[in-house]
Amino acid sequence: MASVRAAGRLQPAARTALQAGISQQTRGYASLFAGEPSGPEIKTQIPGPKSQQAIKELDKVFDTRAVNMLADYTQSKGNYIVDPDGNVLLDVYAQIASIPVGYNNPTLAKAAQSPEMINSLINRPALGNFPSHDWAQILETGILSVAPKGLDQVFTATAGSDANECAFKAAFMYKAQQRRGGPDVEFTAEELSSCMNNSLPGASNLSILSFKSAFHGRLFGTLSTTRSKPIHKLDIPAFDWPQATFPLLKYPLEEHATENAKAEADALADVERLITTFPHPPAAVIVEPIQSEGGDNHASPAFFRGLRELTAKHDVLFIVDEVQTGIGATGKFWAHEHWDLPTPPDMVTFSKKAQTAGYYYGNPALRPNKPYRQFNTWMGDPARAILFRGIIDEVKRLNLVEHTAKTGDYLYAGIEKLAVKYPGQFKNLRGKGQGTFIAFDSPQRDAFLKKAKTVGVNIGGSGESAVRLRPMLIFDKVHADILLEAMEKIVKM
Amino acid sequence: MASVRAAGRLQPAARTALQAGISQQTRGYASLFAGEPSGPEIKTQIPGPKSQQAIKELDKVFDTRAVNMLADYTQSKGNYIVDPDGNVLLDVYAQIASIPVGYNNPTLAKAAQSPEMINSLINRPALGNFPSHDWAQILETGILSVAPKGLDQVFTATAGSDANECAFKAAFMYKAQQRRGGPDVEFTAEELSSCMNNSLPGASNLSILSFKSAFHGRLFGTLSTTRSKPIHKLDIPAFDWPQATFPLLKYPLEEHATENAKAEADALADVERLITTFPHPPAAVIVEPIQSEGGDNHASPAFFRGLRELTAKHDVLFIVDEVQTGIGATGKFWAHEHWDLPTPPDMVTFSKKAQTAGYYYGNPALRPNKPYRQFNTWMGDPARAILFRGIIDEVKRLNLVEHTAKTGDYLYAGIEKLAVKYPGQFKNLRGKGQGTFIAFDSPQRDAFLKKAKTVGVNIGGSGESAVRLRPMLIFDKVHADILLEAMEKIVKM
Repeated sequence: MASVRAAGRLQPAARTALQAGISQQTRGYASLFAGEPSGPEIKTQIPGPKSQQAIKELDKVFDTRAVNMLADYTQSKGNYIVDPDGNVLLDVYAQIASIPVGYNNPTLAKAAQSPEMINSLINRPALGNFPSHDWAQILETGILSVAPKGLDQVFTATAGSDANECAFKAAFMYKAQQRRGGPDVEFTAEELSSCMNNSLPGASNLSILSFKSAFHGRLFGTLSTTRSKPIHKLDIPAFDWPQATFPLLKYPLEEHATENAKAEADALADVERLITTFPHPPAAVIVEPIQSEGGDNHASPAFFRGLRELTAKHDVLFIVDEVQTGIGATGKFWAHEHWDLPTPPDMVTFSKKAQTAGYYYGNPALRPNKPYRQFNTWMGDPARAILFRGIIDEVKRLNLVEHTAKTGDYLYAGIEKLAVKYPGQFKNLRGKGQGTFIAFDSPQRDAFLKKAKTVGVNIGGSGESAVRLRPMLIFDKVHADILLEAMEKIVKM
Repeated sequence: MASVRAAGRLQPAARTALQAGISQQTRGYASLFAGEPSGPEIKTQIPGPKSQQAIKELDKVFDTRAVNMLADYTQSKGNYIVDPDGNVLLDVYAQIASIPVGYNNPTLAKAAQSPEMINSLINRPALGNFPSHDWAQILETGILSVAPKGLDQVFTATAGSDANECAFKAAFMYKAQQRRGGPDVEFTAEELSSCMNNSLPGASNLSILSFKSAFHGRLFGTLSTTRSKPIHKLDIPAFDWPQATFPLLKYPLEEHATENAKAEADALADVERLITTFPHPPAAVIVEPIQSEGGDNHASPAFFRGLRELTAKHDVLFIVDEVQTGIGATGKFWAHEHWDLPTPPDMVTFSKKAQTAGYYYGNPALRPNKPYRQFNTWMGDPARAILFRGIIDEVKRLNLVEHTAKTGDYLYAGIEKLAVKYPGQFKNLRGKGQGTFIAFDSPQRDAFLKKAKTVGVNIGGSGESAVRLRPMLIFDKVHADILLEAMEKIVKM
């Protein structure tokens, strides 16, 4: 901790962060990640002078107004992100919930150096036309080895947003085929010509139903289902698609059981109303297991079972968007495993911690009736699929899903105590039993996030007032203690 | 050529391919790519027994109906693609025009093994929030070092389709800001609330104007501008956006100068009519320098200059989609360099041979007025940006743009001779002076492409009847000779 001597010019807050790091060291250290820093270390304001200079340079060629902090990834390790000024922060935002097993994870470094990876990096195929001889094996030992129950096929994509859009396309083609009378009914001349004009009947008048405060991406189709914030949607053309009420649960849950059950029943009734009456009938309903960007809004397993039943009853496809919730963070590999569904979702989309993207499906009829209907040049990236396989290996080796369930319970209990000690500072605490996928509302959220940096923690927000915790899967009790100490300091500032 | 002995069971066509390979060897060999096979080598029908088995396996989990051939990329080299049955084909399709400098290029292999690459693979940032300290330098020494003249900034993306959609979003935000009265005019309460409903005035009623037979991608926004084939568009909701006539030139150009000039003038008049009268006014016009998927449709530099003038006159943004034409294949780094434009395009999109994607722009007002309006989690991929830098290095080291211009002229002259010798077989030959970006119409196009495999060449089609040549930039005269011999064999079959 050579930097302690250099701390003369530090703010008091920074010094307490250093002390947090030191107290951590004295507590003894047993990490899932060898060689990780023993705690945060704040040497300058953030951004410090080196970061400021680099941001100024970058801004000449790249919009930097959304920059949260600059990072030196070569120096970052495990749960800790390091910046060019040498500040070391415990990272519980993790690249918007997309780093699964730590910075510079040795298992991934090994996968990244494998001949297979080099081959796939420099010989990127057009996967639909020219797949490699071992593509099936890469899928089966990787992406498909963690396929949600009941879903045994995949369409690969490059990021969450295009994964969702491809799932939408599959839904539209499936429903149109049903209307048409099956896969063998030929398209009419009118359909063939009108679609070239973007007109009916060849184009579709169906819709995708999503929920208020949902986030499913920012391309034109997904943005039409995203209802998070105006700044995401302003000035962009959008489809006239329906949005259903999402139940706004009250916390603590046990004190509001009746009201919450009613809110969920009302929301389901709203879904059924829209399915049966909206002028553009939904081909599919898409839902996040926990609305993430929209403010960490939860609903009960019973609500999602109701949604599965409703969609089945009206023959509307049920798409679960696990882009942010998937890959272990909720204490299950897929968050929808918490629901005990009677039948699986029709499609489950994934990205972020998978470091690649796509949608899983089971029903073979979701393959469109002809080739080239669901197609693009790259259709994903084998290099990133190989990386996901490395991530899966690490998750299994270290039993990280179960680990995250336990660490999450520990962290949740710690925040519960803080919430009692500091009334009004940790409101609507949510995510109990959901691994480390925990959030609460802060009365001064943006200030909270800013202060967090001064005490050596990188935390993200969501919605208007939520502080969302999105640690990596290698986040341990030792890190939870640092985070709890830091959060107490923040509210005392 | 051990396989020659094993060729007892081969089709006659395959034997001639072997002979082509052998005659190539006797011709002497000087390649830009050390260790490349000396010619094609066909050992089995394609797909051979091993490929058939692998496709069957793959089909259980991944739609294989668009599979053209399976590849063993570990064995592929330079201009040659190898399949699991040991067949070696000269590849002038190159993963739908996306392999720039050859399979297993040693410069790229070196880049792929660099500590920088490993770091960027395993520590993928959310680029908008947490860029790495050296992101500016990676951009400046790579992507931006080849920026089109007049454009000095970039928004990075993951593939051509989302690059185009992000360019559309920039255009919509720019035009809305103009209507609103500038960047400092605040959004109204009505705009903020209506956009959450996908309604006006917060959502946009503007459009993107594209051309008949254009291809700009298959996500919901780009698919609304794509007018290539019904199979690309059927059953998918689309925006009511305008499509202008694209001039259908007659060949040979010198014999149809008057007609072609009239076709181009008519097309420009159609653009102006749509800009001024279409109910959803265009925020931007998007155009490919050569319509690629739509059948390799060319227009003259004068046409594109006219388009630039028209868009400037009516204050509509001008987006050039260089996803397929960019990175050297037309004998210029960017195809629009052929046009001698009075002012640069407002945005130029790229992907494919760049192995990454994005849009270049120059006008700072194309950065939306607030952060987070143009944003997503990954916003591209530094690993692929580093690979593009390696590609640029290789293009410069071997002077591949000029090389491709020369090889293209040589190949074009060869096909011209074939067209005279075999009337009706190489119709509407096009791409003169456009590097190797050459195409012609074949009376039996699909059969032509199929036969090509039997003589050891992998060729792609586009539109209804075009054979499109998309060799890599390391394609040399020696390969042109093999290709010309093969094409002569095909039409004689």
